[in-house]
Amino acid sequence: MTTETTDLSDLDFPTDLEAAPLSISDEVADLLFHEAHTVNAFADDAVPDGAVRAAYDLVRWGPTAMYTVPLRLLLVRTPDARARLAAHLTEGNRSRVLTAPLTIVAAADTSFHHHLATLAPHAVGMVDTFEGDAESRVQLARQSGLIQVGYLIAGLRAAGLHVGPMGGFDAAGIDTEFFADNGWRSLLVLNVGQPALAGSARPRARRLAYADVARTV
Amino acid sequence: MTTETTDLSDLDFPTDLEAAPLSISDEVADLLFHEAHTVNAFADDAVPDGAVRAAYDLVRWGPTAMYTVPLRLLLVRTPDARARLAAHLTEGNRSRVLTAPLTIVAAADTSFHHHLATLAPHAVGMVDTFEGDAESRVQLARQSGLIQVGYLIAGLRAAGLHVGPMGGFDAAGIDTEFFADNGWRSLLVLNVGQPALAGSARPRARRLAYADVARTV
Repeated sequence: MTTETTDLSDLDFPTDLEAAPLSISDEVADLLFHEAHTVNAFADDAVPDGAVRAAYDLVRWGPTAMYTVPLRLLLVRTPDARARLAAHLTEGNRSRVLTAPLTIVAAADTSFHHHLATLAPHAVGMVDTFEGDAESRVQLARQSGLIQVGYLIAGLRAAGLHVGPMGGFDAAGIDTEFFADNGWRSLLVLNVGQPALAGSARPRARRLAYADVARTV
Repeated sequence: MTTETTDLSDLDFPTDLEAAPLSISDEVADLLFHEAHTVNAFADDAVPDGAVRAAYDLVRWGPTAMYTVPLRLLLVRTPDARARLAAHLTEGNRSRVLTAPLTIVAAADTSFHHHLATLAPHAVGMVDTFEGDAESRVQLARQSGLIQVGYLIAGLRAAGLHVGPMGGFDAAGIDTEFFADNGWRSLLVLNVGQPALAGSARPRARRLAYADVARTV
């Protein structure tokens, strides 16, 4: 799993060290990351809303900037909604959305500040500042929203689901189609369900080793 | 934990349903999300590199766009490096970096395409396209890098560590200070360690209920 080490000549600390043991079991590590693969072909089994709620109820506790928790979820279920969404995806992704048991558009709420009285009473003085600074709101919602997408993918797997995230889409098109009324901004499109019995995923790809991604100063 | 429901009048599906059971134990859910709090004051215990490697070795398997896996880690350990980093943080965050046992700058590698032959041999034809399109590289590295930051926070907790993420920093300043030679872009600054015995975290804040963040179409 290692690759050539690049540009690490200025290291003062060893990085080819042994990994410490995890505080979770091998089974949980497999479920969340090690054995979980991006799924491209799903079985027909329906995905109940309760499983998505279980994932959300878990990951909503993950940290975000100033307790803003801006992640929002659009569950795309009806044939009409699937077709409207597919029109904004790259061609290779369209049939995946039309056939997946559930597709979720993960989005960031740029009006997150309206909830600060609930989420962060100590910071409610920021509401007016945010109200007058849409650019900062978009940037913060996108940054924390994407971090929450990472939590969400782990959380959906913790709820026993498999995911097929898709980056190839026209974000502005989706936002106009579905979020014109509420200011949400699409971050990622995820198909969700159980894997098809065969051909659901690529063979495991390689990853960079720790020594290739970490520097110490 | 619920708040007023906003703008859900067009829902065709119930969202106040019961959550399904998770596939992980309550203990794991507590470790990763439910009981884990953002830590603002840390004990002096050193954080070994091996614990960070364990977290990375776990979360590097999480999905990213086109298998690009652009997350990179700068471990800030020496007093000199801490001072250089603190200079680019908002005033309230400086002492946290100067006193934390370890600070990590999570960054996105905008030259991720140089590794595609290793990471995604089927997509190696994209190397030249990416080489000529720095804007797309920055956007993709940032999007997938932030999703990986979400995985990383869960992974550090899975490695028995606690985190204190900080959003208040001058990203361009950090990039010039530490990443002028390699094109990394800072995404988030995280203090890492074990919580101080007292006063390490705020009381648990509230979160929006599932019905407030999910719409179905």
